Amino acid sequence: MKTVSLPNPTKKRFIQLLRILQKCKDKKITSVAISEATGWKSSLIRHDLWLIGFNKGVSDGYFVNELADAIGQALKIFENDKTCDNDSEQKENNAFYANKSIISSPVKKLSYKVCIVGLGRLGAALLDWNFFENSVFEICAGFDSNVNRVEILRSTFPLYPASEMEFIVKKEKIKFAVLTVQDKDAQNMADRIIKAGITRIVNMTNVLLKIPANVKAENLSVITALNLLL
Amino acid sequence: MKTVSLPNPTKKRFIQLLRILQKCKDKKITSVAISEATGWKSSLIRHDLWLIGFNKGVSDGYFVNELADAIGQALKIFENDKTCDNDSEQKENNAFYANKSIISSPVKKLSYKVCIVGLGRLGAALLDWNFFENSVFEICAGFDSNVNRVEILRSTFPLYPASEMEFIVKKEKIKFAVLTVQDKDAQNMADRIIKAGITRIVNMTNVLLKIPANVKAENLSVITALNLLL
Repeated sequence: MKTVSLPNPTKKRFIQLLRILQKCKDKKITSVAISEATGWKSSLIRHDLWLIGFNKGVSDGYFVNELADAIGQALKIFENDKTCDNDSEQKENNAFYANKSIISSPVKKLSYKVCIVGLGRLGAALLDWNFFENSVFEICAGFDSNVNRVEILRSTFPLYPASEMEFIVKKEKIKFAVLTVQDKDAQNMADRIIKAGITRIVNMTNVLLKIPANVKAENLSVITALNLLL
Repeated sequence: MKTVSLPNPTKKRFIQLLRILQKCKDKKITSVAISEATGWKSSLIRHDLWLIGFNKGVSDGYFVNELADAIGQALKIFENDKTCDNDSEQKENNAFYANKSIISSPVKKLSYKVCIVGLGRLGAALLDWNFFENSVFEICAGFDSNVNRVEILRSTFPLYPASEMEFIVKKEKIKFAVLTVQDKDAQNMADRIIKAGITRIVNMTNVLLKIPANVKAENLSVITALNLLL
């Protein structure tokens, strides 16, 4: 499988396509079926798959399992083929699992540690988001400068006062953060977590963060999304 | 000002740039200053401005007020020039306000009605998001199928049981919705609000919605954003 840096629109389509494949109960899926489920032209789908060197389509469709694995690897959700494609047992497993959901695929699902920075209403809303559990992201810490809030909120993972943030991020080697602080604290908190080792930020504030070149951020503001729809 | 359909990356930059301009206390801003604040190359900034036909830059920078108005109009946040550029009073006002924040700009800020569909933890988190108040979006209704929740939650705008959704959306002529229901209810709720008249959806679920061609959706999933950062 080619390892390439995918353009964001392709990545977004792949993320959505992978979700569809994960729910697909059939062994095979045609490009027509993908097109119907997504609204994308089949030429676009083929172009995306060409980008990752996936050319295993047959006349009556793609194997759901193979396609999901290829896309999962391209998205870095699954471990790359190279680490596990060298034994015949694997192939048997593939055949065995071909008809099942890829949740139980033998391709190893990777895992990434994430922390939530800011436990106001929005940050707290992420605490019980049950769909984190089917993703490759493992929330392993929440931080808030309000010690009281940290003590009161219930969560399946530990919550800490912001004063312990640098220590915990370093200790747990967390690289991903969801930033849900108030706008006025956004840059300051971003600076602190970046210094502690965070390199990937989902920024849910309305502030345009100044970040070093080695750090990436995705801006996820409801207001921005609404503006894009105008 | 040219009325064009802007590409999304340009729109996103404009939204961010407008926020910077709104906080800018100076009369003028240079492209170097914009570049420093945003990290964008000045050629990119000029390209974006060229797209909306803004060429009022002078050697020592753009007038903050003029630039913000042009961008606000391009984003459909402000009313278009054509409706109010025909009197000299307006020009005096512009001169008067040139040194102020564009919040007090004489260009009329438009307003769009939005509803929140689904008042679980995530939907409820939007209820007191204070930054809605500085945007052009006016949240005017919240809906949830849990009648109990509708009665308990406090909010500055009315909350209704989902059974009244179609009636309220039609009556209030709401066109924008933020969809924060559980994944399993996403498509069903989307179908219902679209039928009631919603044409713009910020989809915060993980479900890829099937929507008619006249409806637009922005997908705003934390998991998707995290995946894009892998």
